[in-house]
Amino acid sequence: MRSDGRTSDQLRTLSIDPSPNRYAEGSALIRMGFTHVLATVSLEEKVPPFLKDQGRGWVTAEYGMLPRSTHERSPREAARGKQSGRTQEIQRLIGRSLRSVVNFEKMGVRTATIDCDVIQADGGTRCASIGGAFVALALAFSNLKKVGVIAESPLVDYLAAVSVGIVDGEPCLDLCYTEDSAADVDMNVVMTGKGELVEVQGTAEHRSFSRKEMDRLLDLAWKGISEIVDLQKRLVQI
Amino acid sequence: MRSDGRTSDQLRTLSIDPSPNRYAEGSALIRMGFTHVLATVSLEEKVPPFLKDQGRGWVTAEYGMLPRSTHERSPREAARGKQSGRTQEIQRLIGRSLRSVVNFEKMGVRTATIDCDVIQADGGTRCASIGGAFVALALAFSNLKKVGVIAESPLVDYLAAVSVGIVDGEPCLDLCYTEDSAADVDMNVVMTGKGELVEVQGTAEHRSFSRKEMDRLLDLAWKGISEIVDLQKRLVQI
Amino acid sequence: MRSDGRTSDQLRTLSIDPSPNRYAEGSALIRMGFTHVLATVSLEEKVPPFLKDQGRGWVTAEYGMLPRSTHERSPREAARGKQSGRTQEIQRLIGRSLRSVVNFEKMGVRTATIDCDVIQADGGTRCASIGGAFVALALAFSNLKKVGVIAESPLVDYLAAVSVGIVDGEPCLDLCYTEDSAADVDMNVVMTGKGELVEVQGTAEHRSFSRKEMDRLLDLAWKGISEIVDLQKRLVQI
Amino acid sequence: MRSDGRTSDQLRTLSIDPSPNRYAEGSALIRMGFTHVLATVSLEEKVPPFLKDQGRGWVTAEYGMLPRSTHERSPREAARGKQSGRTQEIQRLIGRSLRSVVNFEKMGVRTATIDCDVIQADGGTRCASIGGAFVALALAFSNLKKVGVIAESPLVDYLAAVSVGIVDGEPCLDLCYTEDSAADVDMNVVMTGKGELVEVQGTAEHRSFSRKEMDRLLDLAWKGISEIVDLQKRLVQI
Amino acid sequence: MRSDGRTSDQLRTLSIDPSPNRYAEGSALIRMGFTHVLATVSLEEKVPPFLKDQGRGWVTAEYGMLPRSTHERSPREAARGKQSGRTQEIQRLIGRSLRSVVNFEKMGVRTATIDCDVIQADGGTRCASIGGAFVALALAFSNLKKVGVIAESPLVDYLAAVSVGIVDGEPCLDLCYTEDSAADVDMNVVMTGKGELVEVQGTAEHRSFSRKEMDRLLDLAWKGISEIVDLQKRLVQI
Amino acid sequence: MRSDGRTSDQLRTLSIDPSPNRYAEGSALIRMGFTHVLATVSLEEKVPPFLKDQGRGWVTAEYGMLPRSTHERSPREAARGKQSGRTQEIQRLIGRSLRSVVNFEKMGVRTATIDCDVIQADGGTRCASIGGAFVALALAFSNLKKVGVIAESPLVDYLAAVSVGIVDGEPCLDLCYTEDSAADVDMNVVMTGKGELVEVQGTAEHRSFSRKEMDRLLDLAWKGISEIVDLQKRLVQI
Repeated sequence: MRSDGRTSDQLRTLSIDPSPNRYAEGSALIRMGFTHVLATVSLEEKVPPFLKDQGRGWVTAEYGMLPRSTHERSPREAARGKQSGRTQEIQRLIGRSLRSVVNFEKMGVRTATIDCDVIQADGGTRCASIGGAFVALALAFSNLKKVGVIAESPLVDYLAAVSVGIVDGEPCLDLCYTEDSAADVDMNVVMTGKGELVEVQGTAEHRSFSRKEMDRLLDLAWKGISEIVDLQKRLVQI
Repeated sequence: MRSDGRTSDQLRTLSIDPSPNRYAEGSALIRMGFTHVLATVSLEEKVPPFLKDQGRGWVTAEYGMLPRSTHERSPREAARGKQSGRTQEIQRLIGRSLRSVVNFEKMGVRTATIDCDVIQADGGTRCASIGGAFVALALAFSNLKKVGVIAESPLVDYLAAVSVGIVDGEPCLDLCYTEDSAADVDMNVVMTGKGELVEVQGTAEHRSFSRKEMDRLLDLAWKGISEIVDLQKRLVQI
Repeated sequence: MRSDGRTSDQLRTLSIDPSPNRYAEGSALIRMGFTHVLATVSLEEKVPPFLKDQGRGWVTAEYGMLPRSTHERSPREAARGKQSGRTQEIQRLIGRSLRSVVNFEKMGVRTATIDCDVIQADGGTRCASIGGAFVALALAFSNLKKVGVIAESPLVDYLAAVSVGIVDGEPCLDLCYTEDSAADVDMNVVMTGKGELVEVQGTAEHRSFSRKEMDRLLDLAWKGISEIVDLQKRLVQI
Repeated sequence: MRSDGRTSDQLRTLSIDPSPNRYAEGSALIRMGFTHVLATVSLEEKVPPFLKDQGRGWVTAEYGMLPRSTHERSPREAARGKQSGRTQEIQRLIGRSLRSVVNFEKMGVRTATIDCDVIQADGGTRCASIGGAFVALALAFSNLKKVGVIAESPLVDYLAAVSVGIVDGEPCLDLCYTEDSAADVDMNVVMTGKGELVEVQGTAEHRSFSRKEMDRLLDLAWKGISEIVDLQKRLVQI
Repeated sequence: MRSDGRTSDQLRTLSIDPSPNRYAEGSALIRMGFTHVLATVSLEEKVPPFLKDQGRGWVTAEYGMLPRSTHERSPREAARGKQSGRTQEIQRLIGRSLRSVVNFEKMGVRTATIDCDVIQADGGTRCASIGGAFVALALAFSNLKKVGVIAESPLVDYLAAVSVGIVDGEPCLDLCYTEDSAADVDMNVVMTGKGELVEVQGTAEHRSFSRKEMDRLLDLAWKGISEIVDLQKRLVQI
Repeated sequence: MRSDGRTSDQLRTLSIDPSPNRYAEGSALIRMGFTHVLATVSLEEKVPPFLKDQGRGWVTAEYGMLPRSTHERSPREAARGKQSGRTQEIQRLIGRSLRSVVNFEKMGVRTATIDCDVIQADGGTRCASIGGAFVALALAFSNLKKVGVIAESPLVDYLAAVSVGIVDGEPCLDLCYTEDSAADVDMNVVMTGKGELVEVQGTAEHRSFSRKEMDRLLDLAWKGISEIVDLQKRLVQI
């Protein structure tokens, strides 16, 4: 039994609120327990220089945390004058993951900028960001299709992510902040709706881990991801 | 009749949601029409160097907008590596305004950092921030009093703010973004619950204005501010 | 009687030295008591991107203080790597104020950049900057007209500014640094030569203030501004 | 057969030159094919603030590339004024990996700063950095032990890393730059000398991948890492 | 005959105005032709960390140009967010040069920060800065001695600087901006009142130069420097 | 006899390794005693904006030190977020010096960016950089000529540099770090193969120096530079 009463293979209470933002081309507010992330998609009819004249689109992401989204206030990155290494690592991960399920030719010459802003944080913010960003992106593409700007959805599959880890010797799904801080091994897993791997980032925090433990963690991750994808399917079509 | 059907002396739909944030010592989510601002208060048991050994507290504020809070996406200030002049001007205004109703001796040797983050913006974000920040601060002080850390509330009065302006020759209360963009004169007014002035920032955007016009704008501002204060009174005691 | 022997409605010794700079298209050195500001105008035959193809001009301002213009040395902003919030707030105010008296169509497609550099500071530097910048700008436009580049002066009125405040309970005109530091209420007022308001920035430093006090301060401000405008009229025509 | 004639499970020509730097407490120059990385260890008798008064040490890493280490010159990060997200991600990985094999109590109150500077880059620089950094750190600790400053080696195991990936449908070991650019799946694996996992970072670049493919990549990685560890064992004892 | 009618060994019109600044511990406004530099000295009762507990003082310098001190406006360094390489090179030169004539033991544990701000620039600003800074520093030390804080002057000699160069094949003293731009060889020379060298910075701009030419330039430099020192001697005692 | 057994007019052991870098258009690794500098030349078919449409080329340089190239580790400039004044001063010197021996018309419309990275530092790094950069540049030009892109070598002479100084009252050639730290006078001299001066930067560190001492130092410099040029001539033709 975990500190919040969950079993080791149980997700936190999950909800995704579609289109909470009035202006963005697509948006979603995802809640995984006390972790709340607002994802907005902004579309622009241009692409970065390295894609010039290729007739295709691009997807990129940015990530931020409100200063008091966390247990203790963190200094505002805009005031510090730079984004931390952690922030950059996370936003690179989000962008890369989303790009893995996008057909850039079908998207046309436009850029989708996904902003993932953490309103409240209780661990697993990067995974929640990916799950919410997928819904926001699907809504933006769906709107483009509705108005006839694109013919087919550029999305090739669903996409979600979850954290798993070994806590007190026990492999667990969807760690909250206190579990995450105490975990011996911590792994973020991004998978498609069909169950293929997109990103695996496993880290030994206090000890190394075996291939067998890794396999058990990947099993748990797929259980959680498939549940998130089920919810996505009820909200958006690809 | 204004574009959204309001009369010239009518506030937009107003609501303040107390304590939306699980971790902050005080928080409030204020909505003035489509402008939504989350204010959180973080207390720390220390003061800035210039207040060392004076046995008193301090209140300071920071302000930010989510990149897609606006009609068009704005670049993230953390990514640009600095806060704009506008951001700095606004957060200085918020901090200064709140300090005008705080008794720093009663507050004790601690700092309240107020973060005002704009979730969605339709004009008047600095005024909404002040109205929401007051509630968040009152909640934080109220909690301190409840646990016996301070004996009396450090707040000496209520505090709210509203924008007024001359739009198409007509003095109007609580401008939305399209009104604000078209206004000849734009004024932000901060007042106490008793109706005293704390800040007046009037700006001629396209033409200068007379003393008489200024008087009319201040009348409108007080009408709006007293309504916001009425709502604050239902939510928090000082 | 004030600390420097002035009456409450008396300006400090005022002088404006036209064209002290050999290279600028227009320049002025204004002295209000011990506050000395050098204003230079640089003209360029281009406008910012947001004015492209509109056939009109632009006026912008920058502000700086020499490190030892003040009683105690302040760190050089170029060395600190950024301009303070105060600097940005002031240069935005100067630019906005000057733009209120410029007809951009008559100015042609060019930008006037006004640099206000404080050589010595004893309070009221933003107001002195505006009064001096107006003369520098008028000289620059006058030169353009003299050589036939523009047909008519783009200036629609004179412009000056002064600080007023409540010191020891007494409304006073043109505060010096020690008065400014001790003032309960501090207000910067920018007005045209005809007596219309352009900017009003009133701030309660230690207590709030009434509408009646505000009226008295605005009366004082106009007395001071009209004297500065009188001097401007002896130096430049619009 | 791969472009450089290797079989799919073959490392590039590997060499590690111990102590190339005259001043550092430990250093190593590792060459994996045309990828050359200089790792130096600098010891200081102090620890970061978060470890104050805990009687233990710390290991941290920084990473950089010479501007023309690559096929095309990259702008110098010191001139651009900030480290890229990629640089920060890599140096966080190097530090985290090395810390997994260090006993901080045995290390004493000191910090080892590992600088990994890429002299020439042909893919796999982060993995080469880890393999070289381990040798530099072992030499630094060995010197501390020799002079009696520490009683036992703080190292608990050997440590090395290698990149693996799926190129043209074929799982391959130790990708060079052209292979890396064309890979469908790219994985960096860090393991201990005993074959336990420390970090797994797998990324689908152009398509997702299956659990089975992942298993094959991990097999290849261990083959390569065990060969690097064999070379480390001939150079340094733990 | 030079463009401004001077002979090749003639200084521009030279003046030094002592104590133009009301607040600084010492100040001087030097004019060499149209080059005008304001030097202020700020004293603080502390020294940089590297001089801790050595019972001695320090002298450092900063340099800046007003944006429109030059023929064409240059961007403000505070707005650009960093000082240029040229600015840093010049302020390092000024500080180093002044330190060569200061006895730091006699100075006591205090730092003199010399700010050299160029009000108007027509070439030779770094040399004018040094000549003016010396007078400002001598005035600051003289004041310290007058009030009994130090027993003896810390200055061991006078100090001045001048630029020399080869223009159209002719060695010339004290180049103005147009001469400087066209010079084949450009040399800044700093010397003491006794005629010893402190800094020599000679640069071939368009061609290399011979030892004989160098000798001729150093002769010219000494002629100019001795005249500046004569003026300094009439203004300040060491 | 000097600390390392050299006579006062003796260079440290000198070697230049041509083309150590696989990718750069030209490269050289120069060793002067324990000072080791890697110079790479990167050619691009474009020039900076100020040379637009002039049919000529440009040469520029950047300089950096590996953090642990020195006796004590120095913070990485990329991590500090800016290049020090010293770094900027040195890279400006290297670029200016190399440009003095280049015919930009013969070079064609292209830019050579020379990166000088200090692998190990024992004094004299800027001088070693210049000597090595010359060889790297000559190799790059030689390759251009070989493939017929340019008709003639753009180099008009050889170029090298050496430090000289007065140590314990004795003029010495090619100072190592400990000599440099203790020197009363320190001079960096850049000369062409024909013995003409390109740069002279002499600095009195602890005392001023006479014209006679300066002459002796220049004699020593030429002795050293001619030996470096002799080695360059064995490696590259101009």
